[in-house]
Amino acid sequence: MSAPAGELRAPSRVSVPADQASVRRNNLALVLRHLRDQGPRSRADIALETKLNKATVSSLVAELQQRDLVRDAGVRHGGGIGRPARIVELAGAGVGALGLELNADYVAAYGTDLAGRVIVDQRASYDAMTANPDAAIHRLAQLARHALADMEQAGAHVAGVTVAMPGLVDVGRGEVLFAPNLHWRDVPVAALLTSALGEPDFHIRLDNDANLGALAEFWSGSAAGTPHMVSVTGEVGVGGGVIVDGRLLRGADGFSGEFGHLPVDPAGHPCGCGRTGCWETKVGLGALVREAAPDLAYGTAPLRGPDERLSQVLRRAADGDARASAALEEVGRWLGVGAAMLVNLFNPRVIVLGGYFARLLEHIEPTFQCELDRLMMAGPAARCAVVPSTLGFGAAVRGGAGVALEAVLDDPTSVFRERGAELGQATPASQTNPGK
Amino acid sequence: MSAPAGELRAPSRVSVPADQASVRRNNLALVLRHLRDQGPRSRADIALETKLNKATVSSLVAELQQRDLVRDAGVRHGGGIGRPARIVELAGAGVGALGLELNADYVAAYGTDLAGRVIVDQRASYDAMTANPDAAIHRLAQLARHALADMEQAGAHVAGVTVAMPGLVDVGRGEVLFAPNLHWRDVPVAALLTSALGEPDFHIRLDNDANLGALAEFWSGSAAGTPHMVSVTGEVGVGGGVIVDGRLLRGADGFSGEFGHLPVDPAGHPCGCGRTGCWETKVGLGALVREAAPDLAYGTAPLRGPDERLSQVLRRAADGDARASAALEEVGRWLGVGAAMLVNLFNPRVIVLGGYFARLLEHIEPTFQCELDRLMMAGPAARCAVVPSTLGFGAAVRGGAGVALEAVLDDPTSVFRERGAELGQATPASQTNPGK
Repeated sequence: MSAPAGELRAPSRVSVPADQASVRRNNLALVLRHLRDQGPRSRADIALETKLNKATVSSLVAELQQRDLVRDAGVRHGGGIGRPARIVELAGAGVGALGLELNADYVAAYGTDLAGRVIVDQRASYDAMTANPDAAIHRLAQLARHALADMEQAGAHVAGVTVAMPGLVDVGRGEVLFAPNLHWRDVPVAALLTSALGEPDFHIRLDNDANLGALAEFWSGSAAGTPHMVSVTGEVGVGGGVIVDGRLLRGADGFSGEFGHLPVDPAGHPCGCGRTGCWETKVGLGALVREAAPDLAYGTAPLRGPDERLSQVLRRAADGDARASAALEEVGRWLGVGAAMLVNLFNPRVIVLGGYFARLLEHIEPTFQCELDRLMMAGPAARCAVVPSTLGFGAAVRGGAGVALEAVLDDPTSVFRERGAELGQATPASQTNPGK
Repeated sequence: MSAPAGELRAPSRVSVPADQASVRRNNLALVLRHLRDQGPRSRADIALETKLNKATVSSLVAELQQRDLVRDAGVRHGGGIGRPARIVELAGAGVGALGLELNADYVAAYGTDLAGRVIVDQRASYDAMTANPDAAIHRLAQLARHALADMEQAGAHVAGVTVAMPGLVDVGRGEVLFAPNLHWRDVPVAALLTSALGEPDFHIRLDNDANLGALAEFWSGSAAGTPHMVSVTGEVGVGGGVIVDGRLLRGADGFSGEFGHLPVDPAGHPCGCGRTGCWETKVGLGALVREAAPDLAYGTAPLRGPDERLSQVLRRAADGDARASAALEEVGRWLGVGAAMLVNLFNPRVIVLGGYFARLLEHIEPTFQCELDRLMMAGPAARCAVVPSTLGFGAAVRGGAGVALEAVLDDPTSVFRERGAELGQATPASQTNPGK
């Protein structure tokens, strides 16, 4: 046997030299995040804690102030030694971020600012399953205009918007490649919305609803901060997001986490994706309603939001409707099968069930748990808790707003570009709106 | 709507102060890896490139020399300016690492050194499916003793051993929790092997075969260095490992990647894990042989290695045996179903098919590819290549040796502890053998 010398080497890490502008950007980001995470403090403390030198910190703070991202917060007197220290703090209320969502049967918006204030939180029924992309974008733009007006009125200048959609999203190009339950293929949502909003000065991103939901769960949900976490969102479709070591698993192109289309039953029902027996044909809200209450099924009954559809099914089961009870039991069983798959694949410490699953869980608990226990390879050793989402249908829009805020924290020069230009900062190429 | 201020915050990174010993250890590791990855160079160059100061580098190199990890490599004369520089280089030939494997129908060993020399590469048929743990460990120890003797004779003092096994492994405790195809539960393999080898001075680790195989594919396989990669290993059982952003996805406890037990057919065959219709009941070597050539099936036919079983099936199909051809076709179809699942879950750039799949692939290609294309949600946009492993059944043992080498690179003080003690280095608590 021969083998090339050193073949068991891990590829070495290559470090790319950073240019001056990117060093400056990274340092602005470092100071801004430090103030957000650690709270108000003096320039001297920031220098000490970030290992930047004092003159640099003063210059960085000055620029962040000119961009309205930080502000003076008075003077702190020390223990009698030295001069009183001038304190700076995050001035996040002027910088807003908006999450929007277009899902099978609703549209939603969530607006917040860097200080954590919630300014917009809306959801409205909308039948996107029968609407064409132009009509749906028109509806989304209408919602966005109202939300943007509310944000401006509250003094939060919107620095970025993220749109959540169910299906495969090309994040870089802002396009939906395939949304099975909407029957959309290759729709440039970010560009269409940018145009519908009159070419605004902020960046409009597009991302998968379940990925954004997973980020929101990780940032602020009931199991926030758990480094190994899976989030599953149930609507008509079923999607998921996976947090690995504290980071969203996106895969090579951002298409990962399509749990809903795991083939679990060759003898099952046809799926919106064109195949048969996908997991979402067993546990999606469409499947529950179809089996539990065919008169309320999608495509036959008048428009209703997911909450109302679920409420009807639960009410019938509580009233002794055998068909509704059996359907709930079956969904519980298949949800257990799927949760076990996720445990066996990702070994998370927590599975967060979101969307309609959040309310459903307590009604199917015994069946669900029994099936999960039976099918986990590692059994109790896997120590995986399953918890309902406290964010419910609001996870994806929150995640969307959060991603837009993170973009500001990653690059503080992205806000108030006109003022940035006045400050003598070159506008980086990445600032031009990719949606245009 | 109200929400706590700042709730969209990502958890902040907490930095733990490193004590002096761990700083020293990290710096030794930094210099050692630098020499391995960048080749022979002067102390001054190391200082410049690692940003350590010159005096520190000299002291670190001196300690690495005393541990026989680096050595002098003569003098390099510069362009006439300054003194000639003394060059140091990796002296890896004295530090060995051994991978061992116990699988359903074979045992294997792979021994290498830090310089990349392959000293041991052996595989022998062994029927672990009917052996009890004591007998199997006895066989593994026998193989290990021969391999260790060969390593010593080649001058490579073994610094660590990793044992690969199919099933759920508690890596921290060195125990097999559950190996479905061996019918083992809760077997402390690392401790048993440590005892059988007479309490050697190196650390014996235990890990899942498919995880180790994935690492070997990432380090030295046909798609080495691809940051998003999935490796699938086919034997009697089917396992997998996932590389995400260049790192092995282990999950919270190391139990991730149990692809073989994805439930794909409720009407399918019983599985070794006690359930029904798992993916490995469709594509495992046991399934192929059962359908293609029942007279050769596991449990009925005399002991054969996996290569021989596959060869027999391929020969019959080539000779016009309709049953063998139909079984190959069916395995090809289900392998396509499974590969599509992996694309939809992980969005890898490459899937490496290892174990018996590596040889099988060319014989099932059209059926496999057709099913994969049909079932990938993202279609051609996913740009996922499927390649046969060039490491075949040898991936797991190579990965095992690689993990043991990485441990040396992570902590150079773990080798030659006695000499390290002479050097005045405290032996860290983590150096005590956890197998005892």
